[in-house]
Amino acid sequence: MYRNEIKIMDCTIRDGGLMNNWQFSDDFVKAVYKGCVEAGVDYMEIGYLSNEKSYSRTENGPWKFCDEKDLRRIVNDNSTGTKLSVMIDIGRIELDKIKPKKESVIDMIRVACYVHQMDKAIQHALYCRDKGYEPTINPMSVSKVNERDLDEALEDVGKSSVPVFYLVDSFGNMYCEHIEQLMHKYKNALPGKTIGIHAHNNMQLALSNTVTGIIEGCNMLDSTFLGLGRGAGNCPTELLISFLKNPKYRLLPVLEVIQEHILPLQQNIDWGYHIPYMITGALNEHPKVAMDWMDSERKNDFTGFLRKMHDKEILE
Amino acid sequence: MYRNEIKIMDCTIRDGGLMNNWQFSDDFVKAVYKGCVEAGVDYMEIGYLSNEKSYSRTENGPWKFCDEKDLRRIVNDNSTGTKLSVMIDIGRIELDKIKPKKESVIDMIRVACYVHQMDKAIQHALYCRDKGYEPTINPMSVSKVNERDLDEALEDVGKSSVPVFYLVDSFGNMYCEHIEQLMHKYKNALPGKTIGIHAHNNMQLALSNTVTGIIEGCNMLDSTFLGLGRGAGNCPTELLISFLKNPKYRLLPVLEVIQEHILPLQQNIDWGYHIPYMITGALNEHPKVAMDWMDSERKNDFTGFLRKMHDKEILE
Repeated sequence: MYRNEIKIMDCTIRDGGLMNNWQFSDDFVKAVYKGCVEAGVDYMEIGYLSNEKSYSRTENGPWKFCDEKDLRRIVNDNSTGTKLSVMIDIGRIELDKIKPKKESVIDMIRVACYVHQMDKAIQHALYCRDKGYEPTINPMSVSKVNERDLDEALEDVGKSSVPVFYLVDSFGNMYCEHIEQLMHKYKNALPGKTIGIHAHNNMQLALSNTVTGIIEGCNMLDSTFLGLGRGAGNCPTELLISFLKNPKYRLLPVLEVIQEHILPLQQNIDWGYHIPYMITGALNEHPKVAMDWMDSERKNDFTGFLRKMHDKEILE
Repeated sequence: MYRNEIKIMDCTIRDGGLMNNWQFSDDFVKAVYKGCVEAGVDYMEIGYLSNEKSYSRTENGPWKFCDEKDLRRIVNDNSTGTKLSVMIDIGRIELDKIKPKKESVIDMIRVACYVHQMDKAIQHALYCRDKGYEPTINPMSVSKVNERDLDEALEDVGKSSVPVFYLVDSFGNMYCEHIEQLMHKYKNALPGKTIGIHAHNNMQLALSNTVTGIIEGCNMLDSTFLGLGRGAGNCPTELLISFLKNPKYRLLPVLEVIQEHILPLQQNIDWGYHIPYMITGALNEHPKVAMDWMDSERKNDFTGFLRKMHDKEILE
């Protein structure tokens, strides 16, 4: 599946941080960064830019905020082939606190939004572009959005100069036919733009949906080391590289980070394929309720969780 | 994805037994049987019929042999809606020891073979049919077979009266485009026959490949509880039922067996997504070498395993 335009975006720290409030040691973040660089990963998303009025510094580690001094402690001036990305959430960021690109090691800013916030998302993305960054728009929870609202949002993005737009499967509910249908819609509405894909693994379909995305024309591919990410996690970087067989990527550095740093983390954090995450995925529900269940003593009471989810007609 | 013809074949005991030489307690096998019956699973494959000259009774549990008395200890006369299946391997079975169907609780006999053994497989399948069983042919390692040999085998099966033929991804190497291409070939060569799919999960594509199989017309779907099976395991029964949303299946009984019986087994048996299995899948190699690695002290030395696999140009 050789296509030169394909870029891998590793979100291990950003999406993985949703499982531990970004309480990663510097050694851990440095190891992931070094692994990305050596593997030839095109972008590494290292965290969120957030307003300190929205989130506490005691509850959240530095990668919820991505201060320039914290970034440089990990990447220095980042004179590597791997670009640095951060995500912003609408309403959780003070735009005027974002430095001009020439004062920052950040290359890309991705705007996470809901579909009904698309006007603000376009404004945020263009603001970031004007400050010198590569912007993207990543609309969440698309599997819950009606077609009319999605079409209007796509029309607005199509008219804008935002260069990159994402297909995001926040709940891990989609399978290949969802991806095909959305990609047809996105390609029609957004000619000339790059389309990315960010999949979750609740139904063990994250790689498969990413592959369908590639077949349909996605060129920005989100993944994380060993799938580390919210709930069931993401498309695993090691699987994506193994699948692509693209000479610009190397598997060995990714495996090295996994065995030294990521695998040990599984002692403390339950990401990956677990039945409660599968159930929210199958029901097209937010994983939050499954994450709370996994944090409780009833974690392995799967029948209790299914009963709680009250969808007896469909799933029992 | 409603289609009345779809049948689920749960292979938990048969394929899972490849990980522990079928050393399951009767309680365990009874629980899986009860779960299959209550979930509405169409077929349960309970083990192999094998020649005792080929395998030792001390090394292998009863489900390597499936004596009638052992079967009846679990299922009595099996007056349920779930049919019972066993698998035979060519060269490891004495055909004349197979009882006539009216003396057995077995309903289906599946003939596992390599493509170069297709003539024998057809002969075995027809022999079983003549004794009153439903036969299938399950050719293994198809991802290593050249097109000429596969076409000839398919032509022979097409001319026979064997009713069911399988697409088997023994190494977990295939993705959707492999399945589509093989299914086009199988459908052309085997008009009027039922096609089944048996996928392995090395690349986390077992459900996805099964879904592609369904879209292309597969109606016999192999799966196992929590994916329990050789190496990376199989398409998980709970995922398949959740995906299908077909009213003839119930998820709750499957989850009950998983939480009480299957999950605890993970303490002792390493099936599922592990990097060595991913590597053999990506390289289209037999999982045996990865299983040996997983049984060694170097189990989590992933870079060592990749180096051992000597495919530095592709994967490093």
